[in-house]
Amino acid sequence: MDAVRLVEVGARDGLQNEPRSLPVATRVALVERLVEAGLRTLEVGAFVSPRWVPQMAGSDEVVRQLGRRPGVTYTALVPNLQGLERALAVGCQEVAVFAAASEAFSQRNINCSIAESLERFRPVLARARDAGVKVRGYVSCVLGCPFSGEVPVAEVVRVTRALHELGCYEVSLGDTIGRGTPGHTRALLEACATEVPLDALAGHFHDTYGMAVANVQAALEAGVRVFDSSVSGLGGCPYSPGATGNVATEELVYLFHGLGLSTGVDLPSLVAAGAFVDQALQRPTGSRVARAMSARAGREAA
Amino acid sequence: MDAVRLVEVGARDGLQNEPRSLPVATRVALVERLVEAGLRTLEVGAFVSPRWVPQMAGSDEVVRQLGRRPGVTYTALVPNLQGLERALAVGCQEVAVFAAASEAFSQRNINCSIAESLERFRPVLARARDAGVKVRGYVSCVLGCPFSGEVPVAEVVRVTRALHELGCYEVSLGDTIGRGTPGHTRALLEACATEVPLDALAGHFHDTYGMAVANVQAALEAGVRVFDSSVSGLGGCPYSPGATGNVATEELVYLFHGLGLSTGVDLPSLVAAGAFVDQALQRPTGSRVARAMSARAGREAA
Repeated sequence: MDAVRLVEVGARDGLQNEPRSLPVATRVALVERLVEAGLRTLEVGAFVSPRWVPQMAGSDEVVRQLGRRPGVTYTALVPNLQGLERALAVGCQEVAVFAAASEAFSQRNINCSIAESLERFRPVLARARDAGVKVRGYVSCVLGCPFSGEVPVAEVVRVTRALHELGCYEVSLGDTIGRGTPGHTRALLEACATEVPLDALAGHFHDTYGMAVANVQAALEAGVRVFDSSVSGLGGCPYSPGATGNVATEELVYLFHGLGLSTGVDLPSLVAAGAFVDQALQRPTGSRVARAMSARAGREAA
Repeated sequence: MDAVRLVEVGARDGLQNEPRSLPVATRVALVERLVEAGLRTLEVGAFVSPRWVPQMAGSDEVVRQLGRRPGVTYTALVPNLQGLERALAVGCQEVAVFAAASEAFSQRNINCSIAESLERFRPVLARARDAGVKVRGYVSCVLGCPFSGEVPVAEVVRVTRALHELGCYEVSLGDTIGRGTPGHTRALLEACATEVPLDALAGHFHDTYGMAVANVQAALEAGVRVFDSSVSGLGGCPYSPGATGNVATEELVYLFHGLGLSTGVDLPSLVAAGAFVDQALQRPTGSRVARAMSARAGREAA
């Protein structure tokens, strides 16, 4: 059976964009439940300043407590060389760097130009290579920018290629504001695939406008087989408070299994992991699959 | 520009599955707002017993008050000849009949076998033809049944063909429990299109598992150009209380415009119509597009 690979970003990209912060123990318990459910690549922290991102405080401790587990990769976001050193100190096997395809977003989000961010990543990639640690790249705003609107496909391709050339083994293309629709998504991925091997591309879709599942389907049709998602849709849309952010992992597992693609994930266990973190955050689930499955279970029990 | 046709079912299929009933005046006001937003085919009532479906009480009055409007078609559901006579008495221009592709669902939902339901529709179609009224057919459970599980594609094709042969100008294929995924959706529509002309097929998707937009995209790829939807996602899933039902019209308009397909609908006006009915029902919107647009408008006003 054909397989897709899911990169679970709930414990980082998700929790980072939730209003409440969770203690280290809860974050570790969440990740362990996600691993039990079958996820094999999980972003578990960010080595950034807790002054800017309080939700990620204690990421060192999260990584340390999780330790190593055969067949499972824990990754963490590192904004610069200093962050990478912290990640290496606690034994991270993989890290990620974060760039944007929009100058306006790069300036407001990471306080430098796109070119400056790429230069900042150069020593990070070199040091990671020496340490035997893989680096994943993110490109945000690939289908639109909350500040400048349209983002040219050529810009996305340029930044994607630059990250790949710097040494990122995989580049995840993020529709940060969820404005993309399937036609544009497919065209974008086909354009990126002319410059970077398809198996080095991943899709990262937000469900802000309800398009994420259709965009994933379009990316699949373009040949992409790696997708980021967040259990229970953790993580609002920071550019539209009150709106939805990351696509729920439950939806992608449901989609892929329906298409006959294996994920290695057990859906009921995943839904249970989502219920665990939702209770900790006192939030309703952001997953329609989780809601439907819970409603069905409730009906059958009644 | 290529066009798609939306059949707005919020005022019938939607309201019928909401726990609160709205008075005639509010339902008329909703339909008028939807027409203002650009919708041209709207299901506005059901000529069924108010003992069974209290939300549809006063459908006669709704149709009467709406009257006729050039270029706009108001339709209503009729379960049998008696219902049709009531629809004709108030001047309905179009009606719809409702069958199932699953025997278990047919028995539990309309209390007869599939064959009996088709026989019941035969005089309805004949009488409607004599009266110059078009009839639309619904087939429910096309991608699964809440009682019997899997539904064979051949059964869907058989019932679809039977309704078309009886005289339905269009047959709307309903994924009643929202369990379909894009591969099955596409295969189903391609199978139906071997027996019934493509332009006589419509797609009716529920978002219970978050798959509706992707299924619409798959149906588009199979050549379907008519889709049912419900403003603000009105209508829960009666078979999974607490879960989502009809796909929101806002999502489909957003999707189609993103794909370069014209709908004739003004999205902000549509979102406003949804906010109107949500307030009347005291429910949160079921549309992610509406939520994102409202959040954005709130941010810009702040």
